[in-house]
Amino acid sequence: MNFTQQYAQYKQMVEEALKALPFDGAPEKLREAMRYSLLSGGKRLRGVLVLAACEAAGGSAEAALPFACAVEMIHAYSLIHDDLPSMDNDTLRRGKPTNHIVFGEGMAILAGDGLLSHAFEVMAAVQSANAFRALGMMAKAAGVSGMLAGQTLDITLEGTSPAADIVRKIHLGKTAALLTAPVTAGLALAGADEKTIAAGEKYGKNLGLAFQIVDDLLDLEGDAALMGKTLGKDAQEGKITWPASVGVPQARLDAAGFIDEAVQALDGLEIKAEFLQALAKDTLHRVQ
Amino acid sequence: MNFTQQYAQYKQMVEEALKALPFDGAPEKLREAMRYSLLSGGKRLRGVLVLAACEAAGGSAEAALPFACAVEMIHAYSLIHDDLPSMDNDTLRRGKPTNHIVFGEGMAILAGDGLLSHAFEVMAAVQSANAFRALGMMAKAAGVSGMLAGQTLDITLEGTSPAADIVRKIHLGKTAALLTAPVTAGLALAGADEKTIAAGEKYGKNLGLAFQIVDDLLDLEGDAALMGKTLGKDAQEGKITWPASVGVPQARLDAAGFIDEAVQALDGLEIKAEFLQALAKDTLHRVQ
Repeated sequence: MNFTQQYAQYKQMVEEALKALPFDGAPEKLREAMRYSLLSGGKRLRGVLVLAACEAAGGSAEAALPFACAVEMIHAYSLIHDDLPSMDNDTLRRGKPTNHIVFGEGMAILAGDGLLSHAFEVMAAVQSANAFRALGMMAKAAGVSGMLAGQTLDITLEGTSPAADIVRKIHLGKTAALLTAPVTAGLALAGADEKTIAAGEKYGKNLGLAFQIVDDLLDLEGDAALMGKTLGKDAQEGKITWPASVGVPQARLDAAGFIDEAVQALDGLEIKAEFLQALAKDTLHRVQ
Repeated sequence: MNFTQQYAQYKQMVEEALKALPFDGAPEKLREAMRYSLLSGGKRLRGVLVLAACEAAGGSAEAALPFACAVEMIHAYSLIHDDLPSMDNDTLRRGKPTNHIVFGEGMAILAGDGLLSHAFEVMAAVQSANAFRALGMMAKAAGVSGMLAGQTLDITLEGTSPAADIVRKIHLGKTAALLTAPVTAGLALAGADEKTIAAGEKYGKNLGLAFQIVDDLLDLEGDAALMGKTLGKDAQEGKITWPASVGVPQARLDAAGFIDEAVQALDGLEIKAEFLQALAKDTLHRVQ
């Protein structure tokens, strides 16, 4: 199986597991609002990373599915809350009206809260020592020193032109944290050792930084229909982006450099790293 | 030590542990917004229940502190989000301006998200099988079949006069879930058996229902300065309350009935139930 086929297979596993989530006991309206955003497509990159990392370290992709669902739920929650009028005020996401446009602001807040809570409920249902360790990694990544740190800096500094190291910090939090945790959690689920997990962390951080730059470049230069969102919006709104901070040519070089770092981080380990390395290289192809 | 002294001691332990939370890596603004609501006083009932339940079943209150902090963080997050303009639109809580009034709506949403995430981070840091079990109970209580189910029904049915069984369902979710989980989690942390945990669940549910009725009665009849919030607001805004559904005299009788159930649930167990039983009776004294 080549990279593209393998990615498609992992992605389908994640998609089906997400569709099958029953959300037992949730009121119909809440379930509907959560599923609207959770099942609105996307690359399922974070879920795929969990499965791939777990298999790379000798675990089973099947067993890692609850964690793949969890990270996709955390990602979906973060998008719902980010899109709110008091945050980024976005009305369109992946070509569809955002959650609060469809369900109202109150329900959108609850849908985000519900997805975050349910992620932990699903992870906690896997009662094993490895699962507990992996859950801790997810909590930290989603938390106040991870994703929420990036988001806070992003909204408090909007409209300013922060130095490159601050932009890096924002992207490490906003994007890289939730691309790193699926890798380290996947490895932890398979019982990987500290050295391997540290390498996974380095891989994830660099992948995350590259991913954010690529996203920012696509916002500047991409195809609106393909992206399913309003383009050029970042610049109009004074959003803090890597290309805005260092210029487009340097941003391209930086993205390539981060991908090299990510690929090298997984060299020489006792795991099957090929898929994860191919995935990193593929990220770059989106803007080349 | 009598009940009042013991409560004060547990409460102080919780208060000090909350004050000492470092929120490592959180941006200053986010930490400030979280601490504003988390450290704004209150009875610390949920935290106290964790410590008391853990000690009742032979565990140590000290060891249960992370879970006491976690449930208080979950409670604080739920209040911040409930107070938002698109939810209950409250400007005053415990005599102070609500979070979004002070920090803005975007930061208030993030502060709530941060407290919820951090609760799981703090619980996950306690790496033991009992802790993992207790974390699962907290996740379920905070989740879409618990607190968020109650909150969803509450906002979607606002302005209607639902039947008593629906009001009960709302209160089981909104209030009782997050009074039950600290009890069952505290018991689980001490390694209690299934029978004891089932009894703790019955205790918590009944305590929760009584607690919500008492709260609603105080909103109708209480002292604004003592309560630190606008009174009579529930009725003005068509809020769904137990007294509104069955009338004040019946609501008083129901509260007393639930407290009897709560007290009896803990009879005949192999735990030291006196404090928890005294706490249930004390809840009722607030409106007698």
